[in-house]
Amino acid sequence: MNIDMIHAAALRLDGHARKTPLLSSPFLDEIAGRRILIKAECLQHTGSFKFRGAWSAVTGMAPKGGVLAYSSGNHAQGVAMAARKYGCPAVIVMPADAPETKLRNTRWLGGEVVTYDRASESREEIGERIATERDLTLIRPFDEPLVIAGQGTTGLEIAAQAKEMGIEEAEVLVCCGGGGLSAGIALALEADAPGMRMRTVEPAGFDDVARSLRTGARQTNNSQSGSICDAILTPAPGELTFPILHRLCGDGLIISDEEALQAIALAFLRLKIVIEPGGAAALAAALYRTDQLESDTVIVTASGGNIDPEMFKQSLNRLKH
Amino acid sequence: MNIDMIHAAALRLDGHARKTPLLSSPFLDEIAGRRILIKAECLQHTGSFKFRGAWSAVTGMAPKGGVLAYSSGNHAQGVAMAARKYGCPAVIVMPADAPETKLRNTRWLGGEVVTYDRASESREEIGERIATERDLTLIRPFDEPLVIAGQGTTGLEIAAQAKEMGIEEAEVLVCCGGGGLSAGIALALEADAPGMRMRTVEPAGFDDVARSLRTGARQTNNSQSGSICDAILTPAPGELTFPILHRLCGDGLIISDEEALQAIALAFLRLKIVIEPGGAAALAAALYRTDQLESDTVIVTASGGNIDPEMFKQSLNRLKH
Repeated sequence: MNIDMIHAAALRLDGHARKTPLLSSPFLDEIAGRRILIKAECLQHTGSFKFRGAWSAVTGMAPKGGVLAYSSGNHAQGVAMAARKYGCPAVIVMPADAPETKLRNTRWLGGEVVTYDRASESREEIGERIATERDLTLIRPFDEPLVIAGQGTTGLEIAAQAKEMGIEEAEVLVCCGGGGLSAGIALALEADAPGMRMRTVEPAGFDDVARSLRTGARQTNNSQSGSICDAILTPAPGELTFPILHRLCGDGLIISDEEALQAIALAFLRLKIVIEPGGAAALAAALYRTDQLESDTVIVTASGGNIDPEMFKQSLNRLKH
Repeated sequence: MNIDMIHAAALRLDGHARKTPLLSSPFLDEIAGRRILIKAECLQHTGSFKFRGAWSAVTGMAPKGGVLAYSSGNHAQGVAMAARKYGCPAVIVMPADAPETKLRNTRWLGGEVVTYDRASESREEIGERIATERDLTLIRPFDEPLVIAGQGTTGLEIAAQAKEMGIEEAEVLVCCGGGGLSAGIALALEADAPGMRMRTVEPAGFDDVARSLRTGARQTNNSQSGSICDAILTPAPGELTFPILHRLCGDGLIISDEEALQAIALAFLRLKIVIEPGGAAALAAALYRTDQLESDTVIVTASGGNIDPEMFKQSLNRLKH
């Protein structure tokens, strides 16, 4: 896993994935007491960065039969759309309690959805069984070099866009589940923006990456549900992703569900983008963990926007009138 | 007023205004029965395209004392931020019933707000009186060549972005109030994308531009309030803008407030952007006036996103669960 793979993925993504904008608002800068730039990956195809890794994997693996993915939802939609564009079938294993929007969209995009119980069943086991039975190529959500390479193109864009604005030093906060986006961005920044430092952000109670970074060994979460940040509730950092994170990242940051909801409301008000709880974690950290940040400029990923309307209304209720 | 002024404005805007993305969703394409591309100007500084014209005017006029603007809100914020960046005072004359968000933001950005009653007073008279008294440079919201030139840079970007996607023929639907954005885009497309045709979109009951295009003479609206599309409720097309629209635009399109709310909800769900009613008119026309459109590809402006949370919740209630 190295920077050359990310550059190769960038070539495959060119003209297929969106180059998402780096947004900002003086209102957010004031809250944070520093400059915040927001990489709006919610504007990516299928509403999250996951399309990058999915397209990188599908085009890199060139599957003969079809592809299979297991996912809390965003990887599902990314793989379904990538398979559709590529022209092959996709089977997606999703938790039965995934947001309705994500289940419905995955089906609409042509994905065949198989649901499982997040508390009692293992998506990895189910996924690998079906892949074997039906001769499908498995696209792992994060522990897959082609996927990490695809997500890493986000980091190449961050480096280039920040440089264009004259910014070469910054902390880069990334919403972190299994670590595919974080590892990809960390590698891209190491190569293209050595003055920047990656920091992972997770919801309280699901801070496996922060604890792993602290102890130097992969830690697991006790639970796999119980936070609204569904997109980033993974059991543990990946085997491939963790060594990269351990080598390149600063201390992990942790935010609450309530802070994620407030960040969603502020993104609505100040940036005019729609982000989901798991995609709001990094912005929440930039706004509410200011004492744990050091740089004058903080760049955050707004990594996904697939939120149900009811949850979004709950976040809007946080705005003072 | 010509294309050279738009190119000159583009140079002044470079590095100051955002190049906003051209978004899309297969879900929206299916509803419309054709390809829809959305120019997301809600992601522009201050949440609407108005910053373009304001920055073009402030940098082009180089005011000595300060600037004054009258506005339903988006031009207000655009001028306030442009003045702040430029380093001069700004007085903004706004209707007392403008959305709270717009009033508050204009003040926060450093604008001195003077309110008036939309039903009984004339903003033009109030604005011109204060400008004279306090020696301020008036920046008209649309009937000002430097403003039209700034808004026209949106059209240069649409032409370039569409060309990059291999698209040279399209109808371009623009949310239309006084016609500054529409006229600017029409001129830009005439020069850079002659295969594209501009169409204005207005809310029912405020279709002055559509009637003016039909009759060939400037028509006025009977009322100045009564639609939720506050950003585009102007009394009549401009003296400068109308001849341009008349020469270059197809028939005007008209949508209902209800259709604007539905378009806002779909933009939330499918594009992950926040748009306001007046900024949703063009998308609504692309989705719900399909019988009045001819081209395989329709490009729409999502011209602003400054919507109050309560109105946004109303739009989300339109989504089927």
